Parts: sequence; C-alpha cells; structure tokens
Amino acid sequence: MRFCRISSEFMKTYFDCIPCFLKQTLEAVRFVIDDENIQENVLRQILKEVSAMDLNGTPPEMGWKIHKMVQEVTGNSDPYREIKQASTRFVLSLMPKLRAVMADSADPFETAVRLSIAGNIIDMAIMAEFDTQRVYDALDHALSEPLNGELKEFRAAAASAKSILFLADNAGEIVFDRFLLEQLGLNRITFVVKGSPIINDATLEDAVESGLTDMVEVMDNGSDAPGTILESCSPEFKEKYESTDLIVAKGQANYETLSDIHRPIAFVLKAKCPVICKDIGCEPGSLIVRTRGL
Amino acid sequence: MRFCRISSEFMKTYFDCIPCFLKQTLEAVRFVIDDENIQENVLRQILKEVSAMDLNGTPPEMGWKIHKMVQEVTGNSDPYREIKQASTRFVLSLMPKLRAVMADSADPFETAVRLSIAGNIIDMAIMAEFDTQRVYDALDHALSEPLNGELKEFRAAAASAKSILFLADNAGEIVFDRFLLEQLGLNRITFVVKGSPIINDATLEDAVESGLTDMVEVMDNGSDAPGTILESCSPEFKEKYESTDLIVAKGQANYETLSDIHRPIAFVLKAKCPVICKDIGCEPGSLIVRTRGL
Repeated sequence: MRFCRISSEFMKTYFDCIPCFLKQTLEAVRFVIDDENIQENVLRQILKEVSAMDLNGTPPEMGWKIHKMVQEVTGNSDPYREIKQASTRFVLSLMPKLRAVMADSADPFETAVRLSIAGNIIDMAIMAEFDTQRVYDALDHALSEPLNGELKEFRAAAASAKSILFLADNAGEIVFDRFLLEQLGLNRITFVVKGSPIINDATLEDAVESGLTDMVEVMDNGSDAPGTILESCSPEFKEKYESTDLIVAKGQANYETLSDIHRPIAFVLKAKCPVICKDIGCEPGSLIVRTRGL
Repeated sequence: MRFCRISSEFMKTYFDCIPCFLKQTLEAVRFVIDDENIQENVLRQILKEVSAMDLNGTPPEMGWKIHKMVQEVTGNSDPYREIKQASTRFVLSLMPKLRAVMADSADPFETAVRLSIAGNIIDMAIMAEFDTQRVYDALDHALSEPLNGELKEFRAAAASAKSILFLADNAGEIVFDRFLLEQLGLNRITFVVKGSPIINDATLEDAVESGLTDMVEVMDNGSDAPGTILESCSPEFKEKYESTDLIVAKGQANYETLSDIHRPIAFVLKAKCPVICKDIGCEPGSLIVRTRGL
C-alpha cells in the first residue's frame, strides 16, 4: 500500500516526499536568511505551491521549484556557494589519504567506485549542515560495507565503452570522483556539471576549483535542475546524451530523473532517503550500483 | 536562531512542526482509508490550510484541525477506535506485571509517576502504528532512567491538595495511570477525558473499558481538541479547572496548550518531539515532571 506509486521504471513525486520537501525548504531558507518573517513567507509560498502541484513529476522536479523559490525570495542566486567551496577544500585536503587507499587496493576499480559513493554523502538536500564527521563516517562505511548491485556489469560496460558521459552530482563529491574517472579512462570521459547553481550541485566553477578541468573534458548541461531533467538541458548536452556509449549517473536525483530512460547507464549512489531505499529495495545508507540498458 | 519562537511560557506553532503535521496527516489518512485519490485530496487540503494558518496557535490547535479534517473527509468520526481498544486490552494484560513492579518499589509514588510516563508512549500522533515492543521498551526505560524535573514539588503539592484534576491523555496510557491515581488518593481525584474522539485520546468509553470509572470520578472536558484548549471546553470543566487545588496534566499536548497558565499544575510526560525537547531542555525520550504555580 504504502509505496505503490513507485516503480523502478519511473519515480514519481511520492506523498512521503512532501513532508521532506517542507523540511528542506525550512533548512534552505534558514541557511540563507535570518529574518523569520521572510522564512515564514517562503514556507507559506511553498505550502501553497505544493498543495496544487502535479504529483506526476519526479521528486527532483519539486526540489527544483523549491530551491529556485528560495533563490528568488532571498535574492541569492547561489545560496550554497560557501558550503560548496568549503566542501571542495575539505575533500581536497583528504586527497593524500584517498590516494593511499587507492594505492593499497587490490581492486582499484571497485575502490574507486566506493570512494565515489562515499562522496555522495555531501548532499545538502539531505544534510542540514556540512558536517565533516559525516564525510569521514561515509568514507569508512563505503570502504567496509558490501556493495549492493551490478559492479560486474558496470565494469564490463566501462571496459568496452569508447565514450562515457559522467553526470556529476555535488561539489566536494566531485573530488572523490577523480579516482573513478581515472579508472574509467580520462580521455574517454565527458564530465557534466550543472549549467547554474541549484542546492550544492557542482557547476563549472566547482569543477575548476576541484582540479577536474585539468583532468577531463568538462561541460555543463545547461540546466539548473537537480538530477538530469532532459527538457531543461541544452541541445549540446542532449546530443552527447543520445550518442555516448555509456552514461555514469551519480546520486539520488539522477536516479530519480533518469531511471525510466533506455540508454546504457550505470547509477552510482549512496541511498539516503526512505523512498529511494524502498524503490531500490535496500537499507538506508547502502552503496548502490545499478545498471540499465547495457 | 532555530528555536527562538518557543518560550517555556507559551508554545506557539513552530516552523519545525509543519513538516511533522504533514507527516501526521499522511499517517492518519493512510490509517483510515486505502484510496490514494482520497489520501491525495486530504493532503492537498491540509497543505492549503497550513499555507494560510495562524502560526500564533499552539501545535495541538493545528493538530486538531488536521485530524478533524481527516475525520470529515473519510466520514469516520473515530478513526482510532480499534487502536484504542487494542491498546487498552494490551495494557490491561500487563497489569499483573505492573502490580508486581509497584509491590517491589521502595518509593511507590515515584514508581507510579514512572509507570504513568511509560504509558505516554502510546501516542498515535507520534507512533505511526501501535507497536507493543515500543511499549515494553518505554516501560523498561521509564523504570531505569533518571526522572527529569520536579518530583519533590509534585509530591508535596499532591500531599496537601484536597482536590486534584487529572487531565488524561491517551487510551491505553490511562491504564498505566491507575497506579498514580491510587498514590494521589482516589477520592480526591476528578479524572478528565476528552468530550469526543480526537486521535487516540481517551474518551469516556476508553475510561470505562480501562476500569477507571470504577475507581475515580470521571468527567469529560466537552472538547474534541488534543491537549486542553480551554475555549473549546465545557463550562463544567472550566469551573473545575479554576477551583481545583492541583492539576495533573499528562502528555505533550497538555504541556503545549497549558504551559502559559498560572494555576497550580504538574506536567507529567515523556518528551518525544524535538521541538518540545528543545523547549524543556532535555534529550528525546526523557521522563519529565514539571510544575508551575505551586
């Protein structure tokens, strides 16, 4: 009964997402503005919006509306700028440790996948504040717990793909992704960031600050939506998306927005919210690799 | 910043309560009706209502609106009837064990307070479903963890009071209250239940099924609001309320609705929600006794 609106083929905005959206609205608006009258105003606007919203959209579509409204009402087009810079700096400071983990690994591809998933904890739609301890914990967890999913299929598809479109998720997280990019083969990759700021999703600026632009071809998708909402993306991105041999999609929002598509894709994420865990059939915190269309 | 709307003198509906109200709406409507179209309709109505609501009310005032709306839309004026009966039967089945706990106690008054607080876990605004394991856990916790608050003041006020108005909270919980009623002195007590059903709050029917009407004078407050919203109560209740020597108020909703009054009162509750914990200054789950006006 409880989750019958969800299918693994197409994730719609689910009733259980609605209280969570309200919680996110509160966190986001408190994060950028202290005035309680403005906080209240944003909250009321979002409630009104949600009361009439189309529940056939995906959760990131609603998240998009909410965070754009926070940007508009507060007059701050990049409210998470400082958090993004701080998380990039923090993960860059971990690089010697992460390099050592890779050097000690018997299976560098799997370890790179695990590090990439660890980085997916840096998600300000889930974390109310940037918390370095949670990053350390996620790192320990990702290196010790079982991987849930289709690593073998992902590895095989990656080995044979001539071109790989890597859909990035958040700032800070993309520093963790560097090892997976190396494993996939830097010259085959187009690394995709958001066209403009939404929550703490990585943009071109974050890719530069993370050293990614020195490693791989980086493009933006022309969109300011969380995940990948194709209608909001640029023609250049859509063309790459249609023609690439393999898509690697990081994070929950890409899973939510792309799980119905039929292009060759590997989803790599840490399952954090109960609705997604139910959809995948896993415990909260699980390390997920899922493939489609391979 | 985060909790500056709350004062221990007067609890207003706080921003953080809003996502929780939405969660409660979902749980309540799912509990009574399977049709997802009706569930969606109730959810949209509540969102619209909340978007325009007066945030100067107490959280139970909003809970009242929400649960009345669920009753109206579903055409079920007592959606928690079966849960209430099941929880009464369950706690009655524990009576031999509870009597043994009392018999072994070096301080029966304190133990009775602890049992009464244990029963306060049976709160369907917090529990999504009736879960006997949580009752067992709450019982163990209440008998072993420190009491937070003013037991000494409560004990002294109870010893000298000629008349005590005991404001009950939930069905099932009121069976746990029997020991505290005995300690307070049965012939001094007026035990107050709700005038008609709201969530799983105890009504006269529950008091009868729990054996309370054979022990003490029982009256209803004429209201169908959670907690004690005086304007919604009968003149008979209000008169008792003004004239009694001591009020004993069970549960979070009574704390939220009565914490600004200046009558002699002892609040006895398990602190369950983060907003109340912040207001009281305690950890979630704490066993609380707070007095005012003594």
